[in-house]
Amino acid sequence: MRPRWLYYKMTLIDDVTCYWLGLARVDGLGVRGAHQLIGYFGSPQAVYQASLTELEGCGLPASVARAIFVQAGLKEADKEIGAAEKAGCSLVIYGREGYPPLLQEIGDPPLVLYVRGDVKALSQHAVAVVGTRRPTAYGISVAHRLACDLAQRQLVIVSGLARGIDSAAHRGALEAKGKTVAVLGSGIDVIYPREHKRLAEQVVESGALISEFPLGTAPTPENFPIRNRIISGLALGAIIVEAAEYSGSLITARLAAEQNREVFAVPGNITSAQAFGPNLLIKQGAKLVDQWLDVVEEFPAPVRMQLLPSADASETAAAGAQTASLFEQSLEPDQKAVFEALRADEALFVDSICGSVSLPQPRVLAALLSLEMSGLVKQLPGKNFIRKL
Amino acid sequence: MRPRWLYYKMTLIDDVTCYWLGLARVDGLGVRGAHQLIGYFGSPQAVYQASLTELEGCGLPASVARAIFVQAGLKEADKEIGAAEKAGCSLVIYGREGYPPLLQEIGDPPLVLYVRGDVKALSQHAVAVVGTRRPTAYGISVAHRLACDLAQRQLVIVSGLARGIDSAAHRGALEAKGKTVAVLGSGIDVIYPREHKRLAEQVVESGALISEFPLGTAPTPENFPIRNRIISGLALGAIIVEAAEYSGSLITARLAAEQNREVFAVPGNITSAQAFGPNLLIKQGAKLVDQWLDVVEEFPAPVRMQLLPSADASETAAAGAQTASLFEQSLEPDQKAVFEALRADEALFVDSICGSVSLPQPRVLAALLSLEMSGLVKQLPGKNFIRKL
Repeated sequence: MRPRWLYYKMTLIDDVTCYWLGLARVDGLGVRGAHQLIGYFGSPQAVYQASLTELEGCGLPASVARAIFVQAGLKEADKEIGAAEKAGCSLVIYGREGYPPLLQEIGDPPLVLYVRGDVKALSQHAVAVVGTRRPTAYGISVAHRLACDLAQRQLVIVSGLARGIDSAAHRGALEAKGKTVAVLGSGIDVIYPREHKRLAEQVVESGALISEFPLGTAPTPENFPIRNRIISGLALGAIIVEAAEYSGSLITARLAAEQNREVFAVPGNITSAQAFGPNLLIKQGAKLVDQWLDVVEEFPAPVRMQLLPSADASETAAAGAQTASLFEQSLEPDQKAVFEALRADEALFVDSICGSVSLPQPRVLAALLSLEMSGLVKQLPGKNFIRKL
Repeated sequence: MRPRWLYYKMTLIDDVTCYWLGLARVDGLGVRGAHQLIGYFGSPQAVYQASLTELEGCGLPASVARAIFVQAGLKEADKEIGAAEKAGCSLVIYGREGYPPLLQEIGDPPLVLYVRGDVKALSQHAVAVVGTRRPTAYGISVAHRLACDLAQRQLVIVSGLARGIDSAAHRGALEAKGKTVAVLGSGIDVIYPREHKRLAEQVVESGALISEFPLGTAPTPENFPIRNRIISGLALGAIIVEAAEYSGSLITARLAAEQNREVFAVPGNITSAQAFGPNLLIKQGAKLVDQWLDVVEEFPAPVRMQLLPSADASETAAAGAQTASLFEQSLEPDQKAVFEALRADEALFVDSICGSVSLPQPRVLAALLSLEMSGLVKQLPGKNFIRKL
């Protein structure tokens, strides 16, 4: 028989958010366990209404079944909803409006996200840029430039607000006047490291700051691997820029691969300890990245089309953003003539290219080779050539 | 009707070498053309004895058929044989004893090689190490170290005696007291650049200096791409260390791929112009190399077995050779215990590894991960682990 005070309590809690938050707080249940229960009973509310026998019948440990039966987590959840409101953050629930569709696809999506800033930014095409907290000057500048170039192409830059590569990535996106999302390993009201408070506010204005941890959660080390799955989960792919042998960024890369996301890595001198991680990932099959195009060209065609640089974006970008992308570089006259003869949607045979450009054949071939070397043109089997994005 | 003086001449020339050398010198025939004719008529001698009608019947241009019919090249070849002897070099003929078996497999193997030094070095397991003539200090040190480490494992280091990466590779092999082969883009008696005369003599003593060009041939630019096919042709694979956008080393890489040889590249900072080539090759599928093991593990198992470091080799190597290979690094106690439980010839399931090592499971798992990260252990599907070479 269910204790009477529980019936009383349940009438007070009419917002379903509370049940989601509550289940997230049941010790020993875990995100996967919670999703299984919700799947079985139909809703978090139904989980909390189940009998002890039913709960134990699901194979839960006795202590967990008992905790849910006595409505563990609900009281805290109720308080948390009010506190979150005061802290100016929204609660975004799994499966409901605003929940990022890509994140929903992973094996263990958070039940609830605490979000400060623009919830919509979480559902836009995004790429994660992560790396060591102790980068070299090279790592910092590369992370900044790649994030800047990618943000200019309307990609949201997701990272972890950490020192080093993470903050360089957020700053690169901000410089491009693009959007960036920071996923915290602490409560959304606990900014770590402290010196990133200003950066965190800039992130909120540009995109969003998010966390799945309850308010006030300290940034303890065990939170970060858990947090990393959200960083990769929000993104089409993750770029690893500098990571030493035991860096957490390698965990993010592994999670990204497990989530079927693209894994990208920026190579570095093999004599640099910070290049160990990216170089290892490349050996294991990650795509080598030395410019933003390497990232975008791996995305599905519909995504690529949406990301094509618009005139507006280029103008915004010109306002201070540094770019060294090959598209912006002026091509030599021969290269230009040949590039213009090529198409992005259809490969052309080398003879027909030579026929349509009014240049001697050796110059056309030389231009094709140099365009291929520059990554603007791709050679397909049988001497066919196609423009890359 | 064949002029009488030709019959007279032919009786003087009884060494078949002369006919091979002669065909190599017929203008407009080319190496592929020469091989086709030899295949059709059975031998170079038979080609020179063919009638004009027969030669024209092979589809040769009239001028070429005529040249062969009037025995073009034979007189020079005869002189060349004497001169080569005086210059202290052997002539190694296609298909005969001493001709490198791997080189024989390529599409356009030289008809004759001029060799100074140890002909046998050409038939041993070899790897090419090539790159830009204008390297950074990083490129020099990496080429030197990789060549040194690989030469210690009994691999012959093949390169082009050029300034920069090539000479660093030769020197690395020499430091390891290993063997090295230099392939010239000039006559074997024309050392270019001149300041490499001493290096060339060291190469002759350690391995061999070779060329397919006639004695006295100047190092003209068009010779180098032709020469490059021999560099890759002699080797199981080619390692590209630093190459800017239009470097000849990228041609060597392409030739190596066309010859079905492994292509390896050493990555570098994407902000370095000299890293453009290797990074591009890696994007196109070349294997990233950051230590000698990355190279050796791509070779077929029988080759790998022959290359296993012998006690002798390690001792020789210790005499001055710098090595940073991971094998030499001392492992942590946990790593050592786990590594010793693993086998190189059979993958073991993670549970059986945990069972056979007297350490708590988390420490075994951590050690496995770190061994995998160090490249000493490979994880196979289904949580099975195997020692890498």
